[in-house]
Amino acid sequence: MFDFTFYNPTKIVFGRGVIAQLPGLIPAGKKVMLVAGGGSIKRNGVYEQIRRALDGRAMVEFFGIPPNPLYETCLEAVALARAEKVEFLLSAGGGSALDATKFIAAAVPYAGKEPWDMFYDWSLVPADPLPLGCVLTLPATGSEMNGGSVVSRKATKEKRYFLSEGVFPRFSILDPQTTFSLPPRQTANGIVDAFVHVLEQYLTYDVTAPLQDRQAEAILLTLIEEGPKALAEPENYNARANLMWCATNALNGLIGCGVPQDWATHAIGHELTALYGLDHAQTLAAVYPGMMQHSRRRKREKLLQYAARVWRLETGDEETRIDAVIARTEDFFRSLGVGTRLAEYNIPKEAGRLVADRLAKQGRPLGERGDLKSQDVEAILQLRA
Amino acid sequence: MFDFTFYNPTKIVFGRGVIAQLPGLIPAGKKVMLVAGGGSIKRNGVYEQIRRALDGRAMVEFFGIPPNPLYETCLEAVALARAEKVEFLLSAGGGSALDATKFIAAAVPYAGKEPWDMFYDWSLVPADPLPLGCVLTLPATGSEMNGGSVVSRKATKEKRYFLSEGVFPRFSILDPQTTFSLPPRQTANGIVDAFVHVLEQYLTYDVTAPLQDRQAEAILLTLIEEGPKALAEPENYNARANLMWCATNALNGLIGCGVPQDWATHAIGHELTALYGLDHAQTLAAVYPGMMQHSRRRKREKLLQYAARVWRLETGDEETRIDAVIARTEDFFRSLGVGTRLAEYNIPKEAGRLVADRLAKQGRPLGERGDLKSQDVEAILQLRA
Repeated sequence: MFDFTFYNPTKIVFGRGVIAQLPGLIPAGKKVMLVAGGGSIKRNGVYEQIRRALDGRAMVEFFGIPPNPLYETCLEAVALARAEKVEFLLSAGGGSALDATKFIAAAVPYAGKEPWDMFYDWSLVPADPLPLGCVLTLPATGSEMNGGSVVSRKATKEKRYFLSEGVFPRFSILDPQTTFSLPPRQTANGIVDAFVHVLEQYLTYDVTAPLQDRQAEAILLTLIEEGPKALAEPENYNARANLMWCATNALNGLIGCGVPQDWATHAIGHELTALYGLDHAQTLAAVYPGMMQHSRRRKREKLLQYAARVWRLETGDEETRIDAVIARTEDFFRSLGVGTRLAEYNIPKEAGRLVADRLAKQGRPLGERGDLKSQDVEAILQLRA
Repeated sequence: MFDFTFYNPTKIVFGRGVIAQLPGLIPAGKKVMLVAGGGSIKRNGVYEQIRRALDGRAMVEFFGIPPNPLYETCLEAVALARAEKVEFLLSAGGGSALDATKFIAAAVPYAGKEPWDMFYDWSLVPADPLPLGCVLTLPATGSEMNGGSVVSRKATKEKRYFLSEGVFPRFSILDPQTTFSLPPRQTANGIVDAFVHVLEQYLTYDVTAPLQDRQAEAILLTLIEEGPKALAEPENYNARANLMWCATNALNGLIGCGVPQDWATHAIGHELTALYGLDHAQTLAAVYPGMMQHSRRRKREKLLQYAARVWRLETGDEETRIDAVIARTEDFFRSLGVGTRLAEYNIPKEAGRLVADRLAKQGRPLGERGDLKSQDVEAILQLRA
């Protein structure tokens, strides 16, 4: 097992009607800014529950955070928060609203000229961002229980992230009932997103960390079992609750303790979103089967373990089992309704070269051993044409 | 799934040589009190590593916390901490030193006359105990990542606990190398302790929480696999590391999220320790098989799941499988060298009546449904005579 540090101070408040607990979670007397997307929280009753819970509190609102939250939009929110002397940020929505909120929390006290620089140098993130909490309405990104923020910049077609202890939500309110009305596409995207978050931390190489392996497999098995149920029965409380708790556990840091991590598929996917506007989960569903195929030698032992323990592929020739588990994974994504081929998203053939070049320019090592080269990135995307 | 709140702000620093990170974990300028047991940390090099890391810091020491930490001893430490105006407590040792430290942290600012009252009324625990951290040298109790403290009172032969958010360790330093020199009895006790912590949160009844079930099974399977390795090869780093991380995960609250919990075996075991001085794990190993046998009807579905998933007992008549899994569990404890019969510990026959009476006087409901009666407690202990 590798050495590690684990720290996660977010308080999770999970269950039916828990938005009503908001008054006890936001310190009294603090001026709150609500940060939200395009207005879905007004349609599903979440906004009303929040306003009722915080009745009488000083509050301003910022609506309009788009999916793949835009830096340009966030800066408007930063200006409002500064002008209104906001003291606490409350995100309401999915991972996009929350990631935007984390960035805004860091950018409000940011003293430099260009807050975007924080994404290139994480040490620039202020030590004391505005405190923030969230009401989560879309299980997917895991942002509700981590210190990460992913933001896109329209002007430069970049999608970047930072990690900082200061932007862990003070609390995250998870009421599975708020997810009953999600469109199937968002539910399916969330399942794929959580699934690939786990694979990025699990499907690498063995370092004798059997507990972390099994904790990862626990999430994968449960997503396979509960994900389709949530899609088929949108108001099945337990299916929604299990899905929501899986997504949180997929990226709260626990399964990544002391093990190698990959994340190359995410790096590639971020570029595809930045260039072509795909949903985040669509990029993962399209790229990950290629990653498995391309890395079948370097990920061999873990692919066989994943095949056996998650998909019960325990007999037969090893190469055949690996072929089968790659197919099963892709089939699972497709069964949820998420396309797994770049052509389905009208991605041109030259995307491979373009993405590889952009990643090479960023200069970050890719893959669990840091040895994926530009030609590997191109090859992976070729496999997924 | 039940509604739940999860909050765990302890920072875990895990790996080889991590005691050296102490200076960055304890705020500079704070006067520290080291709290430890009988001196094992002087024999295994931990004390020297701590002194070296904190060289130049203001520090006082309190040695002499016994296993099953005594209230009477803790009060001496409270007096020292007050006299020395200590500002930070550092526990070094196992769960006993740490539980004592948590109590001391709460008792120093306690304004009432009798700090013992906190164990009867948790609301009496001060909101701002002294901050504390720990260097853990014995994986077992999980105290390194929770807000619980268990203390015994010699004068009244009581063993009681409290839970409070204020006493979560700010950090816990876990270097598996510090456990290489543990006596086999303590290693074995730790395995049993962690194992039964999981069972108390898992072997109850189904509430459609498959992720939590699998996270619990992940720990059980890993303890079964790695525990014997750690005993057979005391300096096997990975075995020690896996054992240590299992014990932490067994009682950091995660697997208990949204599920019913039992803890009757712990309640019975605490009385056995208070009355007869058994090691905590010895009480669990002796009582738990009786709990399984006595509750085989009310825990039926989960016993079958536990049999299938943890012990691979998947075929044959259901009653036979339940018999087998109870036997397997007991055999596992015995294989570690922990006695599983009360007679082995010279517990008299009247213990059943005595323990049942003491628990009845405490008036707390017992078991995951709160319906275990005095006659059930007596019957369980009779099964284990």
